Amino acid sequence: MSGNSIGKSFMVTCFGESHGKCVGVVVDGCPLGLEVNEEIIQRELDRRRPRLERVSTSRREEDKVQLLSGVFMGRTTGAPITMLVWNRDVDSTPYDEYRWKPRPGHADYPALIRYGGNNDYRGGGRFSGRLTAAIVMAGAIAKVYLQAKHVEVLAYTLEVAGIRAQVPPTPSDIRERASRNVMSCPDQEAAKRMEKAVEAAREEGDSVGGIVECLALGVPPGVGDPIFDSLDADLAKMLFDIPAVKGVEFGSGFGAARLKGSENNDPYRLQDGRVVTETNNSGGILGGLSNGMPIIVRVAFKPTPSISKRQRTVDLKRMEETELEIKGRHDACIVPRAVPVVEAAVAVVLADHILRLGL
Amino acid sequence: MSGNSIGKSFMVTCFGESHGKCVGVVVDGCPLGLEVNEEIIQRELDRRRPRLERVSTSRREEDKVQLLSGVFMGRTTGAPITMLVWNRDVDSTPYDEYRWKPRPGHADYPALIRYGGNNDYRGGGRFSGRLTAAIVMAGAIAKVYLQAKHVEVLAYTLEVAGIRAQVPPTPSDIRERASRNVMSCPDQEAAKRMEKAVEAAREEGDSVGGIVECLALGVPPGVGDPIFDSLDADLAKMLFDIPAVKGVEFGSGFGAARLKGSENNDPYRLQDGRVVTETNNSGGILGGLSNGMPIIVRVAFKPTPSISKRQRTVDLKRMEETELEIKGRHDACIVPRAVPVVEAAVAVVLADHILRLGL
Amino acid sequence: MSGNSIGKSFMVTCFGESHGKCVGVVVDGCPLGLEVNEEIIQRELDRRRPRLERVSTSRREEDKVQLLSGVFMGRTTGAPITMLVWNRDVDSTPYDEYRWKPRPGHADYPALIRYGGNNDYRGGGRFSGRLTAAIVMAGAIAKVYLQAKHVEVLAYTLEVAGIRAQVPPTPSDIRERASRNVMSCPDQEAAKRMEKAVEAAREEGDSVGGIVECLALGVPPGVGDPIFDSLDADLAKMLFDIPAVKGVEFGSGFGAARLKGSENNDPYRLQDGRVVTETNNSGGILGGLSNGMPIIVRVAFKPTPSISKRQRTVDLKRMEETELEIKGRHDACIVPRAVPVVEAAVAVVLADHILRLGL
Amino acid sequence: MSGNSIGKSFMVTCFGESHGKCVGVVVDGCPLGLEVNEEIIQRELDRRRPRLERVSTSRREEDKVQLLSGVFMGRTTGAPITMLVWNRDVDSTPYDEYRWKPRPGHADYPALIRYGGNNDYRGGGRFSGRLTAAIVMAGAIAKVYLQAKHVEVLAYTLEVAGIRAQVPPTPSDIRERASRNVMSCPDQEAAKRMEKAVEAAREEGDSVGGIVECLALGVPPGVGDPIFDSLDADLAKMLFDIPAVKGVEFGSGFGAARLKGSENNDPYRLQDGRVVTETNNSGGILGGLSNGMPIIVRVAFKPTPSISKRQRTVDLKRMEETELEIKGRHDACIVPRAVPVVEAAVAVVLADHILRLGL
Repeated sequence: MSGNSIGKSFMVTCFGESHGKCVGVVVDGCPLGLEVNEEIIQRELDRRRPRLERVSTSRREEDKVQLLSGVFMGRTTGAPITMLVWNRDVDSTPYDEYRWKPRPGHADYPALIRYGGNNDYRGGGRFSGRLTAAIVMAGAIAKVYLQAKHVEVLAYTLEVAGIRAQVPPTPSDIRERASRNVMSCPDQEAAKRMEKAVEAAREEGDSVGGIVECLALGVPPGVGDPIFDSLDADLAKMLFDIPAVKGVEFGSGFGAARLKGSENNDPYRLQDGRVVTETNNSGGILGGLSNGMPIIVRVAFKPTPSISKRQRTVDLKRMEETELEIKGRHDACIVPRAVPVVEAAVAVVLADHILRLGL
Repeated sequence: MSGNSIGKSFMVTCFGESHGKCVGVVVDGCPLGLEVNEEIIQRELDRRRPRLERVSTSRREEDKVQLLSGVFMGRTTGAPITMLVWNRDVDSTPYDEYRWKPRPGHADYPALIRYGGNNDYRGGGRFSGRLTAAIVMAGAIAKVYLQAKHVEVLAYTLEVAGIRAQVPPTPSDIRERASRNVMSCPDQEAAKRMEKAVEAAREEGDSVGGIVECLALGVPPGVGDPIFDSLDADLAKMLFDIPAVKGVEFGSGFGAARLKGSENNDPYRLQDGRVVTETNNSGGILGGLSNGMPIIVRVAFKPTPSISKRQRTVDLKRMEETELEIKGRHDACIVPRAVPVVEAAVAVVLADHILRLGL
Repeated sequence: MSGNSIGKSFMVTCFGESHGKCVGVVVDGCPLGLEVNEEIIQRELDRRRPRLERVSTSRREEDKVQLLSGVFMGRTTGAPITMLVWNRDVDSTPYDEYRWKPRPGHADYPALIRYGGNNDYRGGGRFSGRLTAAIVMAGAIAKVYLQAKHVEVLAYTLEVAGIRAQVPPTPSDIRERASRNVMSCPDQEAAKRMEKAVEAAREEGDSVGGIVECLALGVPPGVGDPIFDSLDADLAKMLFDIPAVKGVEFGSGFGAARLKGSENNDPYRLQDGRVVTETNNSGGILGGLSNGMPIIVRVAFKPTPSISKRQRTVDLKRMEETELEIKGRHDACIVPRAVPVVEAAVAVVLADHILRLGL
Repeated sequence: MSGNSIGKSFMVTCFGESHGKCVGVVVDGCPLGLEVNEEIIQRELDRRRPRLERVSTSRREEDKVQLLSGVFMGRTTGAPITMLVWNRDVDSTPYDEYRWKPRPGHADYPALIRYGGNNDYRGGGRFSGRLTAAIVMAGAIAKVYLQAKHVEVLAYTLEVAGIRAQVPPTPSDIRERASRNVMSCPDQEAAKRMEKAVEAAREEGDSVGGIVECLALGVPPGVGDPIFDSLDADLAKMLFDIPAVKGVEFGSGFGAARLKGSENNDPYRLQDGRVVTETNNSGGILGGLSNGMPIIVRVAFKPTPSISKRQRTVDLKRMEETELEIKGRHDACIVPRAVPVVEAAVAVVLADHILRLGL
């Protein structure tokens, strides 16, 4: 059963494997006439590259995008846009062991069952974080479209290892401050502490998780559909498609469960002749529709499962309990690298939904 | 753009409005030969009826399901199964006011924009909680299929008004205890306190929210697909399609963001010759695939936005700020009524995904 | 696997069985604000009723449409539109025999295999021509939309029992003349001979086939997509979905195979400042896109397989060869009744494709 | 709106342009464990290359397939299979003229309107016959799957320039004889006359059309679905997606319109304990389901619109009538090259439908 596409009007199909020839994506349904080129896509891909010198994965992919179709004379044609990054030679040797001694927290075990041993397990195959390059490439196209619609998507690190950032109130401050540290965190002081926590975890052979927050600004009211094509539902689906995501919440989110209606309801008022809400507990979405306020979504990432500490697992060939040590260097915290991925994911869904309305 | 269907192999299409003629659903792709009749569906619908005598909505729908197609001689035929509940006459008068004075926390305002005033706004139209009857009817069919596959879905109230239940470790205890109180909560003592909190809120003209937790037991490992058809992503999408949901998390969820990899990874071990995990922080899903452990998902519901307290809003005709008092009796807490809806939503997605594999 | 929906922007889902409770349809994605009511739909359904007094089926369904959702205050709301016709009590007895002694030319045998005996075989179940009522109801909605876009769809009987009509050159003449006879044929003289041929076949206990031609006028150039969403491909799919259709051709069609390029190519010229083609061998579609000329499609219907002549078949229980006599009165020619069905099918596809463009 | 994918369980997404970087295809949903490699795909692509030395296009693409994803250790993995052929440098100069002086019979004019001048018009862009390489590559994969299911698809030239082949009764004779001439025609004598007719047309600067017939053998009874997922409807859609197709018919096809029910109905009988039909006027499909007999479909191809004879057209910049001479050498008959494309198209649809049933 086919299952590698998402979106209706702006449909994204992802192909490739972590250690195969390439990771690629087809974007079908992109409006024509948009200025798109490899530089624009590369810029987003570069944001996904490891920036935590001391803490991130040793794999150094250049990830130079190649644009294969759908763009002519620097503009989109309305035809499918195909983009890919070639994989460079990497050492797949350790994965022969993980195949039969599944790494805790990774998809090794269910994948073996699911594909009866036929899947390309090298580097995690299609379960690798490397596949998020496809989301980022598709998101780069989505952002060009959204920009033309005056919609901006802005993600940043909110929390790492339990250290929570103070987020400044204006998007421009958030953007500017988050660009000044490797954690993509809009709170310099928190960023420093986060970085230390990541470094400490790495030294212990361990890893830490965190939360990415994402704003979407300029989304007009009325985007989405009730019931099965709710905007929040489609955003959540796309966000949970990112590896390592364990929770998604909008506005007051899980906190809403502890508020009273009179506290959580956002009263309407007028501002410069526009209808706005006093608070934004809804996170900009009511009944599955955008309400014109900033969309606010938070995404919880678990700590990277690749840790060098010795772990208990099972030898699936001998069917006996055993232990495992994961070799090599891995990201001790993927949160900063997830920031552009979350942004891309949100951009793809917004582009799709805005296009559905023909806005 | 069509947007009222969900699922691929087991496709659910929802129709109808809160105060229109009916609320209905078409289930397309249900396997043939399953024993289905109106009683089985009615049983699930009845669980959705208000049980909190003192606290729930005064609307007394009988909600008798009518099965229109797809079942012959008591068994599914492989043809689309259509089910509906007719709406009884209800008073739509107050909604004329809300249309132009949007109720905070409801979809009135974005819906007016989205549909340019053409939507059936009576009773909230398609944004009404009443539409969840469609999910419950579809879920009733899904459960018949899942039962044949030895999969059980079990939801219950975990938290209301900040009061958290102690959940017993075994599903049979959970089921039995949750059936003994109107809160559908597996902790009798907590249930009593929750009920009081709901009553107190209602007396203040206010409302409270809460969290529903749902287990899926017996799901074999390997159900789902990486990237865009992840099992967790599809579950999250369906759950966010339920009105009032603001957060969804699996396993350790948002808590995972504060754990280390060595704490959050679930070590594998053998139990009676089966591969299991020591802990279940993954909530039964790794890399978008079930891993054979119980699937655990938590769903945060905001407090019902319909409160009788005076609220600030805007008069959209005159474009001036005003106030609003919502008349009538409304659920001061929808959490217990949401329990069978969450169960149905999870069942529909699991049925769809298991069918995709042809298991 | 779900398979009872068609269309992307204007999605039609069909449910119900020939001798079940009803035949119905959900139209999802219809633009809002269109004037729709039961009378408009009924008018199209009435055109599908038997008009050949002497020759058509004795089944006298009133086929009164009931509109269940998606219309409020006489206008479409953007929500799914559900319509159905209830089945009246009919005698299903003969079908117990056909189930195990499959009628030649009907789907009895492959349906038994396909559904392992679980399908509702009464009256042909979902393989009955009665299901075309769903297409006609959906088409009625599509036509309201197309009318607002100045697109007209016009079908008529071109050939019956080998008798070919002379078709007048103007649509208004076609429409007017076709309305004057029970064959829906724009050639009075041919219509008379057709009627006699049908009558003769009926007296012999036999049946005849024919060809319906359909024009779509006013379709702007550029509707459709190359490769997999070609306008002609989608029209053909929908037309082959009508029971008894065995061939579909556009413009010069099969005749094009015998022409030279210089004969078949339609030269461009200007007419009143508009680009038109001198001839219309393309049938208004080039490369899967409309070219602004009338769309012309011809649909071949086989003779009704229900004939009272004794036929050879197999007793599937005893696995021995046997004979069968089909009782009751049946249409000796379904072509005139197929005319509004072809029109509806073409209208649904055009509405879908025009909506995809957001025109 | 996305529109470059087809199929549900076996989904094919096509990308690329005639004179862009490449033409490619993603096959999503292919079962795992099938032996697939570049040689198998290349073999099918090679069949599509021009074989009519004297008569076919001068463009000499090597069309070496590159397999980018979805195959590991020589077997399919269940992940999307991406294949492409790179385009070699070609002269796109003449297309600058055709863009504004549309070639009769080509999509130049509606494409200009459809894409507002943004489409890659070089070589016909996405409307080029070159895009059928994508169908052939996808078909190569489908055939591997079908072979494992004992289903064979066999296409051949039935008619060219009005010269009709005598088709031998057995598939092995058809295959063997069709392989012996450049027309892919199972009648040597007719093939010679066809070849001459093509040559004569070419010398006149003209072109000829023809009919491809395709058999599918070994399809079990019961494949397909009634109404909107009919097997014949899906085959027709896919076949009309091939450029230059103007008609599709099954079994007795348009001829059925002139038969009586008693002539056209295929009587059932037993043969070696299997249910078969005496004749095969249905072309192996009844009510949208395969009936176990060979599927027979005929596809009418118009004469290649690229002719060197002077043609009348319109200068769209000056909006005045003008003339056009198409330069270069083009296929004077594409029918033989269409044979493997028809075969691939039929294979893709059968693979999709058989997979839907989980057979």
